[in-house]
Amino acid sequence: MVKGFSFSAVEAGVKKPGRLDLGLIFSEKPAAAAGFFTTNAVQAAPVLLSRPKLASGRLQAVIVNSGNANACTGPKGMADAEKMAGLAARGLKIDPGLVAVCSTGVIGRPLPLDRITAAAPRLIEELSPDGLGSLARAIMTTDKVPKIATVELDLAGRPAGLVGVAKGSGMIHPMLEPAAQDEARGLPQATMLVFLMTDAPVAPFALREALSDALPASFHSITVDGDTSTNDSLIIMANGAAGGPVIEDFGSPGGSAFYGAVGRVCRDLALQLVADADGGTKVVTLLAKGAGSEMEADMAVMAVALSPLCKTAFFGADPNWGRILVAAGSSGARVETDKVEISFDGVTVFAQGLPADQRTLAAAEEVLKKPAFKVTIDLKAGDFEREFITSDLSLDYVRINSKYPA
Amino acid sequence: MVKGFSFSAVEAGVKKPGRLDLGLIFSEKPAAAAGFFTTNAVQAAPVLLSRPKLASGRLQAVIVNSGNANACTGPKGMADAEKMAGLAARGLKIDPGLVAVCSTGVIGRPLPLDRITAAAPRLIEELSPDGLGSLARAIMTTDKVPKIATVELDLAGRPAGLVGVAKGSGMIHPMLEPAAQDEARGLPQATMLVFLMTDAPVAPFALREALSDALPASFHSITVDGDTSTNDSLIIMANGAAGGPVIEDFGSPGGSAFYGAVGRVCRDLALQLVADADGGTKVVTLLAKGAGSEMEADMAVMAVALSPLCKTAFFGADPNWGRILVAAGSSGARVETDKVEISFDGVTVFAQGLPADQRTLAAAEEVLKKPAFKVTIDLKAGDFEREFITSDLSLDYVRINSKYPA
Repeated sequence: MVKGFSFSAVEAGVKKPGRLDLGLIFSEKPAAAAGFFTTNAVQAAPVLLSRPKLASGRLQAVIVNSGNANACTGPKGMADAEKMAGLAARGLKIDPGLVAVCSTGVIGRPLPLDRITAAAPRLIEELSPDGLGSLARAIMTTDKVPKIATVELDLAGRPAGLVGVAKGSGMIHPMLEPAAQDEARGLPQATMLVFLMTDAPVAPFALREALSDALPASFHSITVDGDTSTNDSLIIMANGAAGGPVIEDFGSPGGSAFYGAVGRVCRDLALQLVADADGGTKVVTLLAKGAGSEMEADMAVMAVALSPLCKTAFFGADPNWGRILVAAGSSGARVETDKVEISFDGVTVFAQGLPADQRTLAAAEEVLKKPAFKVTIDLKAGDFEREFITSDLSLDYVRINSKYPA
Repeated sequence: MVKGFSFSAVEAGVKKPGRLDLGLIFSEKPAAAAGFFTTNAVQAAPVLLSRPKLASGRLQAVIVNSGNANACTGPKGMADAEKMAGLAARGLKIDPGLVAVCSTGVIGRPLPLDRITAAAPRLIEELSPDGLGSLARAIMTTDKVPKIATVELDLAGRPAGLVGVAKGSGMIHPMLEPAAQDEARGLPQATMLVFLMTDAPVAPFALREALSDALPASFHSITVDGDTSTNDSLIIMANGAAGGPVIEDFGSPGGSAFYGAVGRVCRDLALQLVADADGGTKVVTLLAKGAGSEMEADMAVMAVALSPLCKTAFFGADPNWGRILVAAGSSGARVETDKVEISFDGVTVFAQGLPADQRTLAAAEEVLKKPAFKVTIDLKAGDFEREFITSDLSLDYVRINSKYPA
């Protein structure tokens, strides 16, 4: 569905036997590209290697492994990341400067480069336009399901496609900044890996701008555990194989359709990440509205999104508006108890300083048993609002993360 | 051990049958007093009622219940808190203005005042100098053990005592401000209740100052879950029954001994709170040192103290320095991977950009199996440091908080 791209995945032995752990994305022709990377002060070798490549606006391939983050691995880690790029470049007969490298997994262990080297020829052989599903599985760590989103585009009568693939599922709270240093920092934080591929013809500037526009309502509005990874990477490639005039910006013919498609794919993948959060059983959309300022809306919604007491209550389907109020009240936002309204999918459980009656609370409990619901906290202190999407904190979250599975 | 104070506790039926849930502290004579209360924007009725009383610097009694926080209960909640004070005042034949009220438990349910009223006469009858142990049990919610700390004082040859009693054990991240509004706000946040009683003669100013001095290294340096309660209250009373000249400030005869004793009792109780954290199996002392500024030391240590990934690793005795580095690295503090050193009780697991060898990591794992250990994160970026004490995040934390026990 996206012409000119092929994908592959093999079992290299980085993870336990029986699981795909090495993947490749290849564009027949060098593609326009943009990348956003973690703002964590501690950055993995593949991030340090790939960031300047993406800043150039051109890319032809991405080689990616799971099971090992190649983070905090010193000079050897940097050399290993470069060797990974070299393996792909030699196999594909392209410039290593056009190969990005991504890794996700355990921090601080040397990459088993011998196994990756041994697997590289198969990775090249198995490249196929139909390989996206395998690639999506190869980048999984504690993820339970592969994550793919697609949009078909109509660019002034000319069909094109946009596909995205992503992995989570712990250490998720993406805060990304563009590879190019000429743009403002986002808020930042996850190991999230996201790859978007389109055959639409798009200039690097438009790719970066479309991602910038898409981030606030997608990856910058989700959290699993509030921890930001050393390896978060979001890469988009546009190879123009669909033909037609190049989309230079939002105002170009097809620009608004393309920007909209990037927004939809990013939002779709972001929701899939929360749905597959470590141990997660609920996708909880939080809306702080009526805040006295933009920052207060952020503080109030974030305090609830990260509160272990709110998140365990969501897990237990306990309509515990008190914990939500406590979190918002200690966030630093202006909160007046008598004004605040809290509702679950429109069922108002707290208003005018008092909780709803038992029957209403029972209805709210039914809402919280659903796999996805919305919590609205109306501070009635102003006109600012912020949405944030969080997972619940379950027994399985603790089980999964009290011993990281190899 | 503290002359002129008596204590009592009864089963009023606020909690489930079979558990003490109503307590009383009484000083034979009106005492000098000081109080610090939650900085949450949402404040429970007993906090709103007691704060101005403590600002006056005088108090004679505290009536306290567990099982119901009397928070978010509207005008009826305020009236109920006043009635609680009145019950104690009438029974004790003292001015209601000298009676503070504290509550802890479920938020948003009306206080069962009829049961408290029915139990009040027994509460007065059972007052005894030996009742502190019962009182300590009566204020427990999800606490597993009562928490008491005592110091014997030698005030220029004159013996005096200081005793403290406290309860946790969830929604713990105390951030308190003094009842008097003429002092700076602390950082602020728990339902923590702490009562300190001394028979030393101390002026209200010195009480407030001694608590202010004690807070940074005690209640303001601990967290369980990062959530700050609507009900946090810290009250100290000094009735002077030990005799001697009044301690007006640190420089007064006996001042330094008294301030030191307050510091020790607060630190002792704060550590007991973390040791009895909801589901907690470890007391983890975190030290961020070598930070580039005071704020960066705070940010780095707090990021680790609140990180679900670090806290689940502590639970699993996993010496996962990577998660610690990730949390510090995304905290906003200046962190250079090649400079940071991370150690567990002196066993250095990460330095010069690389992890220690397997044998050292195995030694670190043994450290993490202990019930208490210290994690040092040396950023080597400056001269600032901050200690913070946190619990681990266990399966039982989730079990306890996914359904709040009545």
